[in-house]
Amino acid sequence: MALIVQKYGGTSVGNPERILNVARRAIAAQEAGNQLVVVVSAMSGVTDNLIKLAKDVSPNPSEREMDVLLATGEQTTIALTAMAINGLGKKAVSLTGAQAGIITSDLHTKAKIAHITPERVTEALAEGNIVIIAGFQGETAEGTITTLGRGGSDLTAIAIAAAIKADLCQIFTDVDGVYTCDPRVVPSAKKISEISYDEMLEMASSGSKVMQSRSVEFAKKFGVVFEVRSSFNNNPGTIVKEETDSMEAVVVRGVSIEKNQAKVTITHVPDRPGTAAKIFNAVANAGLIIDMIVQNVSVQGSTDISFTMSKDELPKAQARLAPVVKEVGASEMLAQDGIAKLSIVGIGMRSHSGVAAKLFDALSSGGINIQMISTSEIKTAVIIDETHIAEGANLVHEAFGLGVASH
Amino acid sequence: MALIVQKYGGTSVGNPERILNVARRAIAAQEAGNQLVVVVSAMSGVTDNLIKLAKDVSPNPSEREMDVLLATGEQTTIALTAMAINGLGKKAVSLTGAQAGIITSDLHTKAKIAHITPERVTEALAEGNIVIIAGFQGETAEGTITTLGRGGSDLTAIAIAAAIKADLCQIFTDVDGVYTCDPRVVPSAKKISEISYDEMLEMASSGSKVMQSRSVEFAKKFGVVFEVRSSFNNNPGTIVKEETDSMEAVVVRGVSIEKNQAKVTITHVPDRPGTAAKIFNAVANAGLIIDMIVQNVSVQGSTDISFTMSKDELPKAQARLAPVVKEVGASEMLAQDGIAKLSIVGIGMRSHSGVAAKLFDALSSGGINIQMISTSEIKTAVIIDETHIAEGANLVHEAFGLGVASH
Repeated sequence: MALIVQKYGGTSVGNPERILNVARRAIAAQEAGNQLVVVVSAMSGVTDNLIKLAKDVSPNPSEREMDVLLATGEQTTIALTAMAINGLGKKAVSLTGAQAGIITSDLHTKAKIAHITPERVTEALAEGNIVIIAGFQGETAEGTITTLGRGGSDLTAIAIAAAIKADLCQIFTDVDGVYTCDPRVVPSAKKISEISYDEMLEMASSGSKVMQSRSVEFAKKFGVVFEVRSSFNNNPGTIVKEETDSMEAVVVRGVSIEKNQAKVTITHVPDRPGTAAKIFNAVANAGLIIDMIVQNVSVQGSTDISFTMSKDELPKAQARLAPVVKEVGASEMLAQDGIAKLSIVGIGMRSHSGVAAKLFDALSSGGINIQMISTSEIKTAVIIDETHIAEGANLVHEAFGLGVASH
Repeated sequence: MALIVQKYGGTSVGNPERILNVARRAIAAQEAGNQLVVVVSAMSGVTDNLIKLAKDVSPNPSEREMDVLLATGEQTTIALTAMAINGLGKKAVSLTGAQAGIITSDLHTKAKIAHITPERVTEALAEGNIVIIAGFQGETAEGTITTLGRGGSDLTAIAIAAAIKADLCQIFTDVDGVYTCDPRVVPSAKKISEISYDEMLEMASSGSKVMQSRSVEFAKKFGVVFEVRSSFNNNPGTIVKEETDSMEAVVVRGVSIEKNQAKVTITHVPDRPGTAAKIFNAVANAGLIIDMIVQNVSVQGSTDISFTMSKDELPKAQARLAPVVKEVGASEMLAQDGIAKLSIVGIGMRSHSGVAAKLFDALSSGGINIQMISTSEIKTAVIIDETHIAEGANLVHEAFGLGVASH
């Protein structure tokens, strides 16, 4: 008998029929001899409607109250899911995040899980219930409702799995798993059967938005093995776990692409200590999220600094940096959108040489120019023109033999 | 400085604009120098939508989960109301029923309040907040969400008022207060300025459904003075409180009418101990709610027993009683709908004679036949043909001088 945590996102519980589908899946898993905890999100659309209501009563709603409001979304789903299971003749009880013992910081709308006291969960399981837990929410030690921010339901599932020492955590979503590349861009992309936490993190941070990084980081920290799979079929998904020796045999696990990027280059930045800090403090203080940063060695006492960000952030970055460029004595600021990032990710890169060369060759074979290069231990990323991203992804995917067989 | 509890029902918080109206009212009361607790219901329509969702996932939803589901309705309103007050520049915090310390029995969907530990309410008040509390809900001692059933938000307001020793509890609704009769039926009906708990209870049980009886009973038990008034204007409402000497001077406080009634008469019931018990146990076991019961003295060893109920209950009562009629050896069961109840209520009746005679005279002057009569210490009720109820109410209202001046 295994102890399994299943998590279903908003589209998987988007209407009564889909909730009944989730109920049947949970029952099937229980009847296969397992103990079941099911974490659910708000029904798709519900959270947006609640936010709209909030904006209708206040232009800038209090974050404490926003959490009280948004928490009703998951509370609705847990009740309906438990009812659906009861209606199908099986025992189920619902628990809010607070009732499940999820204690968080008081950073409303993006609280961090401090600890979990899952006694009510384990008691309800011992009584033969399928336990339905509201994702995305918890409460402070003082008993005030909090929410966990984007991707919070995944985090709830993984944290509960860690707290009750589950054998497996299944993240049900609207995709079949993690693919070697986005199948809409690269038709030969294959589902990856196993991937390490680190690879999953690099895939996520490189645009494969199956899960938020912090959920993967939490799983890595507590050694929670989880599977990403579809709630609309019974295909096995992708298992995410600690790396194994056999994983290293694969040099490149996948190709990740991210469109709608923009880059800023500040030219002739004087090569003095503290200059880069000034630039990036200005960026951070504006709340801008930047991605790649590239600075080459200085020539004749000055250097060029480039960095990328989402295209949407560009106007804010330009406005914020204009005075800083003058202040540090740089020549000018160049900005460009219409670019995209292509990354290859794999823990096997650490022990294989020639990986970057093969990447550059593949792009070169398509006449695709590389504008920036950035590497980490298990990732190599390049910036190319956005119009070439599909062609580039297919060339790279083929060059590393990713479409040949499932990994 | 007074400590005031205000309660706003579903129509009073039915949309964002009305929630802002409630926020402004609460702020105005606070700025007049008072401490404010505001109890709110679910926005009108929300509860019905949730019930529909529940029926869509299960034909017979679990009551435990129904409570988890329905509690989201008030939780949504508390968050929006607190946001609205914050948006208008004042401090407010929301509390769910559980957070406000409302501990109930575990009788789901109609839990009884066991006790209240209002520390979080009083602390939040001391910090200068307007405290917004979810009506209709609480939790068991084990921390499971419960709801209080129909009229539950009124009960929350009155119970909280008792627990924090509020100076006044204001029940805001869509009517201006308690009237001497339904103004849609009796155009000369006047708003009653003060009424005793007992009169209010008799008015409620006689069809003037401003509030559920149990909220009034709770207020009477704990001596909570409350006011029923409109959330759509600033008119003073009706104060409900312990009776005073001056109240006794008014013989009849109001005329209460209830349409859509039906009566059942069982004829020639043998006059033996236990016969009535058999009949009414059958009724009770079927969950039927009956109203008036009339049995006259027995003649020649048998008697007729009549009782009234809502017209909707009649088919169930007939089906249930058919075998019992035979079992007890009665002759037959006669059923009739199309009748109505007219009651006069007033604590002054206790010390005045001729009240019933005046009632019968008034009806007689309109040629209205009286089918049944039932009296209590502060009420006299008659059953008449439903087609005569408006005429009868106007005649009786005038006979007791109720339209002449407000009481």
